[in-house]
Amino acid sequence: MSTLENRQWKLVARPSGMVKRTDFEFATEPVREPGAGEVLVKTQYLSLDPAMRGWMNDVRSYVPPVGLGDVMRAGGIGQVIASNDPSLAVGDTVNGGTGIQEYAVMNAKWLTKVDPTFAPLPRYLGALGMPGLTAYFGLLSVCEPKEGETVVVSGAAGAVGSVTGQIAKIKGCRAVGIAGGQDKCKYLIDELGYDAAIDYKADDVRKALRAACPDGVDVYFDNVGGDILDLVLTQLARNARISICGAISQYNNTEPTQGPANYLSLLVFHARMEGFVVSDYAAQFPEARKELAVWIGEGQLKAREHIVDGIETFPETFQMLFNGQNFGKLVLKVAE
Amino acid sequence: MSTLENRQWKLVARPSGMVKRTDFEFATEPVREPGAGEVLVKTQYLSLDPAMRGWMNDVRSYVPPVGLGDVMRAGGIGQVIASNDPSLAVGDTVNGGTGIQEYAVMNAKWLTKVDPTFAPLPRYLGALGMPGLTAYFGLLSVCEPKEGETVVVSGAAGAVGSVTGQIAKIKGCRAVGIAGGQDKCKYLIDELGYDAAIDYKADDVRKALRAACPDGVDVYFDNVGGDILDLVLTQLARNARISICGAISQYNNTEPTQGPANYLSLLVFHARMEGFVVSDYAAQFPEARKELAVWIGEGQLKAREHIVDGIETFPETFQMLFNGQNFGKLVLKVAE
Repeated sequence: MSTLENRQWKLVARPSGMVKRTDFEFATEPVREPGAGEVLVKTQYLSLDPAMRGWMNDVRSYVPPVGLGDVMRAGGIGQVIASNDPSLAVGDTVNGGTGIQEYAVMNAKWLTKVDPTFAPLPRYLGALGMPGLTAYFGLLSVCEPKEGETVVVSGAAGAVGSVTGQIAKIKGCRAVGIAGGQDKCKYLIDELGYDAAIDYKADDVRKALRAACPDGVDVYFDNVGGDILDLVLTQLARNARISICGAISQYNNTEPTQGPANYLSLLVFHARMEGFVVSDYAAQFPEARKELAVWIGEGQLKAREHIVDGIETFPETFQMLFNGQNFGKLVLKVAE
Repeated sequence: MSTLENRQWKLVARPSGMVKRTDFEFATEPVREPGAGEVLVKTQYLSLDPAMRGWMNDVRSYVPPVGLGDVMRAGGIGQVIASNDPSLAVGDTVNGGTGIQEYAVMNAKWLTKVDPTFAPLPRYLGALGMPGLTAYFGLLSVCEPKEGETVVVSGAAGAVGSVTGQIAKIKGCRAVGIAGGQDKCKYLIDELGYDAAIDYKADDVRKALRAACPDGVDVYFDNVGGDILDLVLTQLARNARISICGAISQYNNTEPTQGPANYLSLLVFHARMEGFVVSDYAAQFPEARKELAVWIGEGQLKAREHIVDGIETFPETFQMLFNGQNFGKLVLKVAE
């Protein structure tokens, strides 16, 4: 065991704007033996999420920032290769906060066992993982969409947005997605069943929204913030609900966040804007996971992962999220 | 009847920034006879409200803008001096949208009869009128405050804010008011029963908020927007509710509205921000009016009006709202 070498990415500087390779150190350390209640996990796939950018900042938020010198926090999936806890056995496939490293020694209670025969492993980091749960609770619990309502989703081809639009359809809503580029827009319509797609890079978003939502926007699931949030605010329907899931357009700001200048539309339309973090709903994860799995099993919920190979590529691969270069849930492959 | 002369303020220009006298025309017109279903009201007191500034802009909102050349829209109270409708008699005191004029011919169904012996007439434009109802629904229906929670109110000494804080106290909450100047802050504590008062002109609002709300802000009733909204957003408690009632700091902007840069705090604190207009709750006005009247009758709800005499002073008196010069509900006295 002690001869295993663990390559890991440590955060060594607080990034300003987009992350740079020099904000991290690619270190190699020996793997320690798991203590009582701990297991050793060999990482296979790591989840790269926009929220990770926020965790690199030294600000009070819903979780403490990653400390300088610490392994970068991330969700991962892998195999138990040594266990010191009766709940997990060698060979089990598990999901949890492994961090960006090849091996993780973790308390068994922070890991969830998953069935590697049900779905490809990367899916447990996407539609069957935190992004899927984020879509589920951010849409269903925060916005309570009703049949026939119009649901607009930004970042609609992303890990969270792709699931959000499909759940909206499952619940009998009209789904309108906003994404960057023709390929993603085509994917929204042809593969995911969105009723309309808006290409924010090419379309006049204001006009396209009006055309796609003639009765206004009942529900808006916001992953991006910035100008798109402001445009949607002008086209709400009465009693609209906005779920604030994220604001990827703002995460690399070196200036203050762009607040929604049109927030007084909330008053005009008697609308509300509510924020959430998926962990707010942790108690309900098991039932939600079950429902997502049923939808995936039935083919009602499709998913796509964008897999990049090699832990050594982490800083550059992570940047893809902010350049809109990933198409599907961005996953870093560490080992087979 | 036709010999009566009606002095009235007409909107003749869309104001840029603060209103000017030249944005209006002070006209005199003969009074016309009320038609079938109509009554003639002699205005006694007119309500001057921040929302009126928004009605002067040529933008889509919750009500259409006041047309150029039209009498400026406003709520008023007065006496019926001629009636062509069985529901109202000469001598009745009525409340409704009279506009800024000495006489108004109105459809009887748009007027509410009030009891002039229960309270001084100007109170029907304040705590017993739209501002009181606005506080009532904006606090109780939008925010659902629970006993023991901390409720922060901006514009706390104003027509709406003064009622909001007192209702919060009636419901067993801690009330923290933000107002401009020592006199208003003293009034909040000594007269209205607020637990703490913050003078935004003199205090460090961030520090004062932290001291007044050690467990965070459960409910924020926002009348002002701008920097104060942004500061409160950083100090929310989990599951906080923000009622967006208005944004007086922004109404005279010639630049775009300052959006709340800290809106992602909604995500961090699992909080929501909801807008409303009092007319959203029109169906419940009668019961709310009754409850407000009971509280006033019992001395639990105090009110103060700032009365300025003379319809001819309208443009300058209206400006007082935005300079923080009024102390209590601003009322324009037109006749005894």
